[in-house]
Amino acid sequence: MIIVLKPGTSSRDEKAVLTEIRRLGYKPHVMRGVAHVVIGAIGDERVNPPLDTLRAWAQVESVTPVQKRHKLVSRQAHPANSTIRVGNVEIGGSEVVVMAGPCSVESEKQLMVTAEAVARAGAKILRGGAFKPRTSPYEFQGLGEKGLKLLSKAKKRTGLPIITELLSEDHVDLVAEHADILQIGARNAQNFQLLIAAARTGKAILLKRGLSMKVDEWLLAGEYVLANGNRNVLFCERGIRTFETYTRNTLDLGAIPIVKQESHLPVVIDPSQGGGRADLVASFCKGAVAMGADALLIEVHPNPKEALSDGAQQLDLGGFARLMDELRPLAKAVGRSMAG
Amino acid sequence: MIIVLKPGTSSRDEKAVLTEIRRLGYKPHVMRGVAHVVIGAIGDERVNPPLDTLRAWAQVESVTPVQKRHKLVSRQAHPANSTIRVGNVEIGGSEVVVMAGPCSVESEKQLMVTAEAVARAGAKILRGGAFKPRTSPYEFQGLGEKGLKLLSKAKKRTGLPIITELLSEDHVDLVAEHADILQIGARNAQNFQLLIAAARTGKAILLKRGLSMKVDEWLLAGEYVLANGNRNVLFCERGIRTFETYTRNTLDLGAIPIVKQESHLPVVIDPSQGGGRADLVASFCKGAVAMGADALLIEVHPNPKEALSDGAQQLDLGGFARLMDELRPLAKAVGRSMAG
Amino acid sequence: MIIVLKPGTSSRDEKAVLTEIRRLGYKPHVMRGVAHVVIGAIGDERVNPPLDTLRAWAQVESVTPVQKRHKLVSRQAHPANSTIRVGNVEIGGSEVVVMAGPCSVESEKQLMVTAEAVARAGAKILRGGAFKPRTSPYEFQGLGEKGLKLLSKAKKRTGLPIITELLSEDHVDLVAEHADILQIGARNAQNFQLLIAAARTGKAILLKRGLSMKVDEWLLAGEYVLANGNRNVLFCERGIRTFETYTRNTLDLGAIPIVKQESHLPVVIDPSQGGGRADLVASFCKGAVAMGADALLIEVHPNPKEALSDGAQQLDLGGFARLMDELRPLAKAVGRSMAG
Amino acid sequence: MIIVLKPGTSSRDEKAVLTEIRRLGYKPHVMRGVAHVVIGAIGDERVNPPLDTLRAWAQVESVTPVQKRHKLVSRQAHPANSTIRVGNVEIGGSEVVVMAGPCSVESEKQLMVTAEAVARAGAKILRGGAFKPRTSPYEFQGLGEKGLKLLSKAKKRTGLPIITELLSEDHVDLVAEHADILQIGARNAQNFQLLIAAARTGKAILLKRGLSMKVDEWLLAGEYVLANGNRNVLFCERGIRTFETYTRNTLDLGAIPIVKQESHLPVVIDPSQGGGRADLVASFCKGAVAMGADALLIEVHPNPKEALSDGAQQLDLGGFARLMDELRPLAKAVGRSMAG
Repeated sequence: MIIVLKPGTSSRDEKAVLTEIRRLGYKPHVMRGVAHVVIGAIGDERVNPPLDTLRAWAQVESVTPVQKRHKLVSRQAHPANSTIRVGNVEIGGSEVVVMAGPCSVESEKQLMVTAEAVARAGAKILRGGAFKPRTSPYEFQGLGEKGLKLLSKAKKRTGLPIITELLSEDHVDLVAEHADILQIGARNAQNFQLLIAAARTGKAILLKRGLSMKVDEWLLAGEYVLANGNRNVLFCERGIRTFETYTRNTLDLGAIPIVKQESHLPVVIDPSQGGGRADLVASFCKGAVAMGADALLIEVHPNPKEALSDGAQQLDLGGFARLMDELRPLAKAVGRSMAG
Repeated sequence: MIIVLKPGTSSRDEKAVLTEIRRLGYKPHVMRGVAHVVIGAIGDERVNPPLDTLRAWAQVESVTPVQKRHKLVSRQAHPANSTIRVGNVEIGGSEVVVMAGPCSVESEKQLMVTAEAVARAGAKILRGGAFKPRTSPYEFQGLGEKGLKLLSKAKKRTGLPIITELLSEDHVDLVAEHADILQIGARNAQNFQLLIAAARTGKAILLKRGLSMKVDEWLLAGEYVLANGNRNVLFCERGIRTFETYTRNTLDLGAIPIVKQESHLPVVIDPSQGGGRADLVASFCKGAVAMGADALLIEVHPNPKEALSDGAQQLDLGGFARLMDELRPLAKAVGRSMAG
Repeated sequence: MIIVLKPGTSSRDEKAVLTEIRRLGYKPHVMRGVAHVVIGAIGDERVNPPLDTLRAWAQVESVTPVQKRHKLVSRQAHPANSTIRVGNVEIGGSEVVVMAGPCSVESEKQLMVTAEAVARAGAKILRGGAFKPRTSPYEFQGLGEKGLKLLSKAKKRTGLPIITELLSEDHVDLVAEHADILQIGARNAQNFQLLIAAARTGKAILLKRGLSMKVDEWLLAGEYVLANGNRNVLFCERGIRTFETYTRNTLDLGAIPIVKQESHLPVVIDPSQGGGRADLVASFCKGAVAMGADALLIEVHPNPKEALSDGAQQLDLGGFARLMDELRPLAKAVGRSMAG
Repeated sequence: MIIVLKPGTSSRDEKAVLTEIRRLGYKPHVMRGVAHVVIGAIGDERVNPPLDTLRAWAQVESVTPVQKRHKLVSRQAHPANSTIRVGNVEIGGSEVVVMAGPCSVESEKQLMVTAEAVARAGAKILRGGAFKPRTSPYEFQGLGEKGLKLLSKAKKRTGLPIITELLSEDHVDLVAEHADILQIGARNAQNFQLLIAAARTGKAILLKRGLSMKVDEWLLAGEYVLANGNRNVLFCERGIRTFETYTRNTLDLGAIPIVKQESHLPVVIDPSQGGGRADLVASFCKGAVAMGADALLIEVHPNPKEALSDGAQQLDLGGFARLMDELRPLAKAVGRSMAG
C-alpha cells in the first residue's frame, strides 16, 4: 500500500504513521519527494489488515492499495480461460452459447412453444423467470414454484438446461432443485448473503452486474462465490445506469475485454435488459460476439405484445431465428462457432 | 396513460392499438396532432394492467404513464407529515433527531463509551453495525449476534433505542429482537424479499437509498413496506454514485425537499457514508438541517484511527459534541429544535 | 405537447391553462382521466413557441413534448443513409472507412512515418492534432499552425485527406485551409458559436459526443450545423462519463444503432479516447464494425512510449496493421468492405 | 509519481523503466513489495514532463501522481480566503452576496422592474442573460447587444454591478464593456480558448462547473484563468448530471466544503439551474448558506409564467423577497451576514 503524507508533516507525525504501519504487520519504506513524503507499506495486503484507517489520520493525504483485492477470480490466479459445464453444454470454450427464453414464465403453452422454437434455432440453454423482482409491489411477481415446475417440464421435453433467477435465501433449495444455473439479478448483485447461499448449492451462478457496479466490485461479488467453494461463476453484463435516457440502461460492451483481462471466468451479455428495446437486441448481440462474449442471454416470447413483463424488449420467435442466422458468420469471423 | 403513435401509422394499425387499450380495461381517447396521433388511455393505472407492452408494438413511439406509481407513501394519500415513534423518540416532528454511534460494534468498551458520549451530547438513538455488508469477502464482517447483544446492553444502560442493519432474511427474528429500527442498506434497497420480511416485524424501517436509485424507485421500495402492513418507514439519503471521484459518494441533499414533496414520511441524512470523509460531515449536517431533514445518522467512534471499518468517515467523541453545538442554532433558524 | 394538470385543479385554473395554450398558437384538447386532466396541445411544436413555461404554473404537473426537436438531421427528414464525400473517400457507404494517425502532431518525422504506415495498412484519412485541448494549462498544447502545415505536407505525400481538431473561433480560417474534416471535440460539443463558425466553412464536420451528452442533445448540436447550411456532419462516439473508473471513459457502442435509427448521417467510433487504453482498442473496433459503424478514428504513433500526449491509448504501427487484418473479415461478415 | 510494475516483470524490463524515469528528469526510488515492484519517481511533477506515457509500457500496471495539478487556485498556494471585489461589493468575505435577475433579458420593462425589486430585497449584483446558449438552434437565443445595453442601463439606475454570460471569443470586448462579472457557462467550462480570452479582460470570472466535471478538472479550468494573469475567479456549482431524472440536474452542495478545502477562491451556488424547478430554489439556498457558500446566483422574473427561457425555474418578485427574509437568520446562525 502507498501512503502519501500531507506537505509539511512534522517528523513526529511521520513517525506515528510508521509505527502504526508496523503495528498492522507491514514494513514501511520511506521516500522523500519534492513536496510530499511517500511511504510504501510492504506486506501482503490480502492477508494483513487493510491500512484504510490511516485515511482518518490528519497528516495522511491518501492511501492507495497496490494489490488488487480479488484473488480466486483473477486471471493471475488462473491464467487459462475457465470453462463451466452445464449438462452437455460448455460455456467459455470455442462455442458462443445462446441462452434464450421468455422474461417471465407465463403459462405452459407460452413456455413450451418458446423452448422448442429457441432449441430449434440453436439456443443451448432455456431461460425463464419464475420469481420476478419488480420495482413496484403492484406489478406481476412471477408464477413462483409453478413456474419452476414448468421449466423442469420444458427441460424434460427439449433437453435444454435451465437458467432462472434466485431472489431469496428462502428459495435456495427450491430453485436449485429445478435450475441448472442460478441467476443473481442486478438488484441483488451485492446481496452477499444470497450469493453465499447460492454458492453452497454447487450450481453454476450467473452473476449480473449491478446497475452502478464498478468492475472491481463485480469481481469481488464473484469472489464471494469462489471463496465459498464454488468456482462455476459466469459474469453477465446487462447494462449500467448512466445519465442517458434514450434507453433504460447503457450496455457496457467494454466489460467483455475488461473482465477477460482481469478474470479467467466466462462473460455473458444480456442484450435484452441491456437496452430495454427489442430493436436494439440484434445490434448488441453482434457487438458482443465480435468482442469475445462467451454467451448471450436473450429474451424471446411467442407474442411480445402480450407479455406480462418487459414486452418491449423481447424478440419474437421469428426474430430470434433470424438473429441466430446473422450471428453465425460473425462468430466464425472471430474464430468461434455457434450452434444451429 | 398517453400513447403516441409513430408518424404515418395506418388507420388499421391505429385501430389495433385502440382495441388493445380497451382489452386491457382502459377507454381510449384519440387526439390528432400535426405529426402524431396521441391516445389517452382513461382508467386507473394503479388498478388496471399497465400498458407497457404497447411499447413492443411497431406503430407505437412512446407510452407515458400519467399517474405516479406509489400510493401509500405518497403525500397525496396522506397530506400531513407522518411521525414515527421509536421508544420515547418521535421522528418527523419539530425536533431534529440525531442517531449516532460506531460504524461497527467492535467491543463492549468501544460501544459503551460511545453510547454514553453521544447520549450526553444529545443523540436520541444509538446506531451500530453488527452484521456488516462488505465489498470483499476478506474484510471484517461484523460481530454478528454478539454485536446485537452488546447493543441491547448499551440500550439498557443509556436508554437509547437501537438502530442496526438487517442483511439477511435469515436474521430477521434475531435482529428484530434487539433493534428498534431495522436499517436496510443501500446494497439491499431493492432486495424486495428482505423488505417484505422486515416489514412484517412491525419495527420501524430505515430504508437507505440505493447507490443509483431514482427517487421514484426509492419511494416504490418504501411502498413494499407499507403494502405489507407497516407504515413506519424512514427514507435515508446516504450518497449516490456519480462520476465524481473526490468523495466516495455524492450526497444528494436535494433528496430532502423532493421526498418531502412526494411523501409524508420522514427523511434522514447519513453524512458519514454520504462523503466517506469525516472532514465533510459537519458541513453536510448543516446543509441537511437547514434543508429540513428530520433526522441525522452519524458515525461516531472513540478512536476512528483504529476502527475496524470505515475509520476515515467516523467522528471522534469531541468532534461529535462540537458538531451538536454547531447544529442547534441552525435548527432554531429553521424553526426546529435539537436536544442537548 | 401533452400537459398534465395536478389532481384537484379547479375549473378556473384549468381554463387559465387552456387560454395560455391558445395564446401560444396551439389548439387545446382536453381529456378527463380518473385522477388527472390531460391536455393535448395541437400544433407544430417546431414552429410555435414551446410550452415549457407552463411548467412554472402551480396547477401543472408535467409538460411532455410529442415531436422530436431535431429536424434536418432526423431519419424522418431523409429516410436513406447520407454519405459524405471527403476527397475520394466516401463515408457512410458500404466501405468502413478508417481514419488514423497520431493523437498530436509532434514532428515532421513522426507524422510522415505514421502517415505512410497507416496508408499502407488501409487507412483512408489521416488524423493528427495541431491544437490540443488540455485539462491543465501546464500540459503540451500542440504545435498549432506548424502542426497544420505538417499535416498538409503529409497529405501531399500520401494523398490522404486530413482530419484535425478545431478549438477556437479565431482559428476557423486557418484550420479550414489545411483540413478536409474539422473535428469538434467533446469539450466543445455544445460550444454552439464554434459549431456555427465551423459549419460556415462548408467543410465536413466530425462532431464528437460530449462527455455527458444525451443522444437528443448530440443530434441537436448536429442540427446547429445543418441549420447553418452544412449537411456534412459525422457523429462520433468517443466514450461517455460514467461512475466506472477502470477506464477513463465508457465507450457507448449502443450509440451506433441508436444514431442510425434517429438520423441519416454517418456514425464514427473513436476507440482510442473511448477507453483511454491501447489494449482495448482492438476489441472496441471489432464491436464497432459488427454493430454498423461507418468509420473508425484510431490513434496511431510510431513510438507510443514517447508520445507527447495520451501515449497510453495509441497503437504502434505494427499493432495498427494487425488490427486492420483482424477487422476485414468482420466487415465482410456484416456485408461491408474495408480497404487494404 | 508512483509507478507500479506488473507482477513478474523481468529485471531488464524494470531497468528500462528506471532509465526512462531518469530521462524525464526524475530520480527513481525502488521498493520491492510482496507481489509488486513499486517505483517512486522523485521530482517536481508540475515542472518536469508527466510520466503518463509509462502507462503505455507493457510492464507498467499503474502510474499515480502524488502532487495535485492545480497550483495558483490551490489553498496551499494561498492559505487565507481570497475575496473578489466587484464595484462596492466584496465576495468571499463575511457577507453572503446575492446575485439575482432574469434568466434572459427580454425587455426594458422586464429588466428594470426586476432589477429594482431584487435590489430592494437585498440583492447586490444583477444577473441577466443577453447571449443564451440553447440546446436547439430553434430556441430563443437572447437579445444580444441590445440586452447588454439594457443591463448597463439597469446598472445606472440601480447601482447594481452586472453579471452576464460570455459565449464566444468574438464577443469578449463587447460583453466586457457592459459586464462587471463574465459568466462562463457549464457548456463552455472546458472551452479553454474562451477562458483565456475572458481572463485577459481582467474582469472577474464566474466559472460554472461543467455538467460532468470532476472537482479536479474544474479547479484546473480556473487555473487557466489565473495562469493568464487574472486572479478574480468565482467557482459556481450549478448542478451536475447524474442518473436521476426527477430534476434536470443534481445540485452538488458538497462542492462547497470541497472547493473551500482545495482552493482559496469564493464559491457560488446557482439553485435555479441546480434543480430546474422554482419550488426547490428556497431549500437549495438554505442548504448553500448553511454550508458556507459565499454567494447565490438566483433567477428572478416578474412573471415566470411568460418567461422566454427557463420559466419553470425562476422565482417571482414576491417569492424572491420572502426567500431573502428566510435566509438571513440562517446566515446569522453560521456567523455570516446578508444584506437587506
